[in-house]
Amino acid sequence: MTVTEETTTSGPGYKWVGTRPIRPDGLDKVTGKARFGADLALPGMLEGAVLRSPHAHARIVSIDTRAAAAMPGVKAIVTGADFPDPAELGGRPDEEMVAANIIARDKVLYEGHVVAAVAATSRKQAQRAAAAIEVEYQPLEHVLTVDEAMADDAPLLHPDLKTRGMDPAPEEPSNIASRISHERGDLDKGFAEADLVVERTFTTKPVHQGYIEPHAAVADAGENGRATIWCSSQGHFAMRTMTATVLGWEPSKLKVIPAEIGGGFGGKTVIYLEPLAVALSAKSGRPVRLVMDRDEVFRASGPTSGTKIRVKVGVTNDGQLTAAEAWMAYEAGAYPGSPVGAGGMTILAPYDIPNFSVEGFDVVVNKPKVAAYRAPGAPMAAFALESVLDELAAGIGMDPVELRLRNAAVEGTQASYGPKFPRIGFVETLEAIRDHDHYRAPLGPNQGRGVASGFWFNAGMNSSATVHVNEDGTMTVVVGTPDIGGSRASMGLMAAEEMGIDVAKIQSIVADTETVGFNDVTGGSRVTLATGAAVVEACRSIKADLRARAAKTWDCDIEEVEWVDGQAQHAGGGETPLSLQALARKSGRTGGPISATASLNARGVGAAFSTQVCDVEVDPETGEVTILRFTTAQDAGTAIHPSYVEGQMQGGVVQGIGWALNEEYIHDRDGRMENPGFLDYRIPVASDLPMIDTVVVEVPNPAHPYGVRGVGEVGIVPPLAAVANAIAAATGCRLVDLPMSPPRVLAAITGKADG
Amino acid sequence: MTVTEETTTSGPGYKWVGTRPIRPDGLDKVTGKARFGADLALPGMLEGAVLRSPHAHARIVSIDTRAAAAMPGVKAIVTGADFPDPAELGGRPDEEMVAANIIARDKVLYEGHVVAAVAATSRKQAQRAAAAIEVEYQPLEHVLTVDEAMADDAPLLHPDLKTRGMDPAPEEPSNIASRISHERGDLDKGFAEADLVVERTFTTKPVHQGYIEPHAAVADAGENGRATIWCSSQGHFAMRTMTATVLGWEPSKLKVIPAEIGGGFGGKTVIYLEPLAVALSAKSGRPVRLVMDRDEVFRASGPTSGTKIRVKVGVTNDGQLTAAEAWMAYEAGAYPGSPVGAGGMTILAPYDIPNFSVEGFDVVVNKPKVAAYRAPGAPMAAFALESVLDELAAGIGMDPVELRLRNAAVEGTQASYGPKFPRIGFVETLEAIRDHDHYRAPLGPNQGRGVASGFWFNAGMNSSATVHVNEDGTMTVVVGTPDIGGSRASMGLMAAEEMGIDVAKIQSIVADTETVGFNDVTGGSRVTLATGAAVVEACRSIKADLRARAAKTWDCDIEEVEWVDGQAQHAGGGETPLSLQALARKSGRTGGPISATASLNARGVGAAFSTQVCDVEVDPETGEVTILRFTTAQDAGTAIHPSYVEGQMQGGVVQGIGWALNEEYIHDRDGRMENPGFLDYRIPVASDLPMIDTVVVEVPNPAHPYGVRGVGEVGIVPPLAAVANAIAAATGCRLVDLPMSPPRVLAAITGKADG
Repeated sequence: MTVTEETTTSGPGYKWVGTRPIRPDGLDKVTGKARFGADLALPGMLEGAVLRSPHAHARIVSIDTRAAAAMPGVKAIVTGADFPDPAELGGRPDEEMVAANIIARDKVLYEGHVVAAVAATSRKQAQRAAAAIEVEYQPLEHVLTVDEAMADDAPLLHPDLKTRGMDPAPEEPSNIASRISHERGDLDKGFAEADLVVERTFTTKPVHQGYIEPHAAVADAGENGRATIWCSSQGHFAMRTMTATVLGWEPSKLKVIPAEIGGGFGGKTVIYLEPLAVALSAKSGRPVRLVMDRDEVFRASGPTSGTKIRVKVGVTNDGQLTAAEAWMAYEAGAYPGSPVGAGGMTILAPYDIPNFSVEGFDVVVNKPKVAAYRAPGAPMAAFALESVLDELAAGIGMDPVELRLRNAAVEGTQASYGPKFPRIGFVETLEAIRDHDHYRAPLGPNQGRGVASGFWFNAGMNSSATVHVNEDGTMTVVVGTPDIGGSRASMGLMAAEEMGIDVAKIQSIVADTETVGFNDVTGGSRVTLATGAAVVEACRSIKADLRARAAKTWDCDIEEVEWVDGQAQHAGGGETPLSLQALARKSGRTGGPISATASLNARGVGAAFSTQVCDVEVDPETGEVTILRFTTAQDAGTAIHPSYVEGQMQGGVVQGIGWALNEEYIHDRDGRMENPGFLDYRIPVASDLPMIDTVVVEVPNPAHPYGVRGVGEVGIVPPLAAVANAIAAATGCRLVDLPMSPPRVLAAITGKADG
Repeated sequence: MTVTEETTTSGPGYKWVGTRPIRPDGLDKVTGKARFGADLALPGMLEGAVLRSPHAHARIVSIDTRAAAAMPGVKAIVTGADFPDPAELGGRPDEEMVAANIIARDKVLYEGHVVAAVAATSRKQAQRAAAAIEVEYQPLEHVLTVDEAMADDAPLLHPDLKTRGMDPAPEEPSNIASRISHERGDLDKGFAEADLVVERTFTTKPVHQGYIEPHAAVADAGENGRATIWCSSQGHFAMRTMTATVLGWEPSKLKVIPAEIGGGFGGKTVIYLEPLAVALSAKSGRPVRLVMDRDEVFRASGPTSGTKIRVKVGVTNDGQLTAAEAWMAYEAGAYPGSPVGAGGMTILAPYDIPNFSVEGFDVVVNKPKVAAYRAPGAPMAAFALESVLDELAAGIGMDPVELRLRNAAVEGTQASYGPKFPRIGFVETLEAIRDHDHYRAPLGPNQGRGVASGFWFNAGMNSSATVHVNEDGTMTVVVGTPDIGGSRASMGLMAAEEMGIDVAKIQSIVADTETVGFNDVTGGSRVTLATGAAVVEACRSIKADLRARAAKTWDCDIEEVEWVDGQAQHAGGGETPLSLQALARKSGRTGGPISATASLNARGVGAAFSTQVCDVEVDPETGEVTILRFTTAQDAGTAIHPSYVEGQMQGGVVQGIGWALNEEYIHDRDGRMENPGFLDYRIPVASDLPMIDTVVVEVPNPAHPYGVRGVGEVGIVPPLAAVANAIAAATGCRLVDLPMSPPRVLAAITGKADG
């Protein structure tokens, strides 16, 4: 997918920020030199295989590994008994859940749940041995949806699980892990003021992030109680913490080296293979590599929740939203932790609605534990709300963008989830779409246009960066947040802007857990903001140091030295300026090497908004939906490297389109996934889609030195509703169940035709 | 060799400094997990071979690589023509020399000089292809010793080389690269005041550092003009600089990852294979591994100089040294750069002699370019001077330790090479030997006892370190100086002392050129001093940060917070102390991750002195010398980890004994080395030697936070003379030519018997 250059941006006099240098990791990736999780081979390394439950819910009666252990080439086998009891980790419940999800003990809770793992001299042999492990199961009844799980007589996954967030606290266990709620104003009064109220119930299916690179981990455990892990993840420090928890080790006994990552989208913020690989390596005394195949990725890593959401919204005839009510239930998979919390916080966030009530439930089901997926919890919520808004606009005869503009949150609006918004750019994204050619382009028969908006918090969290000035005057920027969306490029650009030197003279690298300070994950669209701020702070320390060295050289006060255009200049002009290169060359004589570290927990996160418009054509004979044109406008704050920003916007839209039209987990009656491969679980490919047009709106975040907001996630929030609204416009049918695949669309059209 | 625990040391109330925790790299090394230079294998990696000159001196008429290139599996061949012309590097003459030494262009200057290198799919195939390269040589006359090279009619290695340091500058070229000199007082007057003058001429042969691990390098050059090098060295930043120079690249285009190092002793401060590997990788597009065998290490890496030294010293009957004169010529090998400068500066440094003159010459010969070897240039100088002092003491009937005590340099003495000594511990080492049991132990027939002293400057130079506090309250110390002599342990101990936490909670690691600030080599006994000071400084920044965070937590002024015993304490006692672990756990709430970087060019280097006593027995029938007992006393400043200090002292002595008794390069008439293997070039093995007893003298260096002086080098300075003096005592024969191998000793005894 090439990049549209329609809206190249430039900041207030920036020289490097806002430019589009060639991506630093590009050559290695296109020539195959980049090394991903499975690309490491160590001398003497064993290959592993994982034995997984074929049952959605079953008691493990016994595991007999003797025959497997006796097979040639088998060097180690681990089962749940080789790991600390999760209940005895002394940690928090969520840590226990991570541990329980890694390998089953007494019960398996979903098809794909790990039962044992084997290391052998070849992958084939490890697989044979895994298959030779004899497991006796006692199958149990299972639940697959929130409706099944919330039923009164539902079989329980966790016999001790009682709903949190209820008042009074329930006495009986259930599959509802927690309840969340938000309220404001007087709901009855609000609905009474409305001229039109629409209420609908929506469902969405679990969908997978669909990253191209399966999970992989190589572990090498030493005799000294330490281990090194090489893996592909969104955060090697988080991998270290979680793996240590599951193993019962101190985190610092583990060194995690980040591989290149072939996509994560939230799904690589959690561990699956790492503790198994360490345990197998410790037991065998050899390095061990574990690699999932696609089938395992689907069955045993975390997709996002299937959901059921009921939304009721009222509006006056002049377009004032008066009240909104939402009831939301999200599948958590086998352990608590669906993103219903974020769903409940985001569903009304773009709008200023005086009266509302939101209630949400986190519900365990016999499916893989869900993981984060790009703006976790928000797309399905927006699907519901933005579909209803579309109907309301149509119902009162108002342009749907205009309806949103009338009710849009602005600076000072108290967000539905609590705080007051600082300067945000939601209105600007609405205006960008309203004023775009696309919004006025003619449509043909069976074609329709839909719009929708979306909100995402973005995150801050902990980042640490170190910056070194090399002897040749070039610089190395060392960060600890894996580069998924171009952060090596954006860090280089911010450092270049700060230092006043050519970005080609700056090398950004992602260091392991021992050679850079602690960093939270690359997630929450936080890295350009938070790691960027750390890099800028480190560069400012470097500049202060350089000015001090120039002052020493010139025998003057540091206040007389300015840093301008990559060189130290004497304010009085009495000295020949000293370039970074010159100062680097003589650093040994002015105090030694030039390096600085900066760490922070980022404050002043800027929220992201996106508004999108989509044209579809619906084949009335097959129900197939073709995306004709798609334009997305998003507030990026400042686009540090616009090509990457556009890429993020496009990627979010494309994933949202896949979610809207095709992607879904299909289970048989026994709770087994029927489509665990990219042939049957169909993500959009380039030939399915037009170019996604991008409008980068820039409303700088005042709390960041370069105005950065996160850009990675919000793009996936509006497409589900935008596509549904376009289909409604094209067909007159309101689809409320995802995916809107040809059979469903055809059924809707036919139903309408029939009716 | 186990460690004597005779003189465990403890500082002024230190808790961790001066203790002996288990070495952190020990388990990996004894279990074979540690990865040395040749232990990296990359997917698709080629193996290389190097074609070397069989001639000591020859013109290259032509090189024909066609037949070799056509051989199966051969992927790349490089010759001098593939590298920038050294004369056009625009660098300094020493950089040109490095480049010329890496691969020959028009002339080969020594047997082993690189002519071409090949990369192929196997090492065998690469060797076959190297052998198939057709080189036409025109042999030239060669010179092997300083006498041959300094002769009027000597063939010239470098037709443009004119002696530096001469006044007036010579008009004619010669093999003398430079002259150094030091003078003080009135030499004639000084000798006139003497009651006894002894003058002798000494020779030493080139000897090799004898590190167990041969040179090895793996290079992986990318399409993006960058390359990664994995190699074993004493300084990966220096490897980067030199390799970049030879390739004509910017240093920052290279990333150098340090392997574990299997011994260096100065010999791994220079490059040999790295640029060849990068060039082969760039040409083939694949990773390339080059590994020397022992034969190549001997013939083509740098031993230390063979020397010729004439010394004349006068003394009064009451033991006052009145005058000293030294003439020194050191072989540089094929390119200028012998350590004659250091030889001239150190030869008289231990003593306060009013009148002296030292003159030295750096002389090129057709042998491999010399490299640093432990206290480079000093042992041969001390061999000469300390042998003469022994004769003088005997001549005036004074105890040899007493003679040295009378003339020893102390604080305030102006060193022979210029500056005034700060607090030094030479007298303390003499007293330690004088007062040691060993010095009074009885001797048997054919046995003798010798003493000698030695001096070494020690170095400071650039170091940078980063310290991270991990989430579990442990710490990681990141340095960029390879750990040869236990620096991971000593860094951990200093950090533990500084932070007040258990050293087991601190992990020290050596990072690559991208993940830590610039660091000069591990050499000059500088790392515990300079990198240690950087670590201490970084820890002090961390402590200030921790105090600030505690103050924030307690809502008090930072001045009210003290850091005591690994925790923040409120001066008023009104708050529960906050441990490092507690502060680490809540770091996200107090400002983010806790990390600090410190860089410096170390000042206040403390000079090292050693005094040693040696008992030998000489077999009158074979001339074989057996070391019966050996005790070394050395001023370590403060011994951070005494076991490593003792190990350094013992190692230096053992290498000195090998140099004294057995080691030598033996060349045939054509200038080809006849003993390029450990069978014929005999270094001492454990069974050859008694335990070397150590007396760690501690006169803290006032300029270092923990009083550190370097300890790695000075131990090799006295043994040559100590053994010679012991042989003289046992036999009555003064041996002046090294090595004092059985044939030489027998000839001396026989000659005496005959005479």
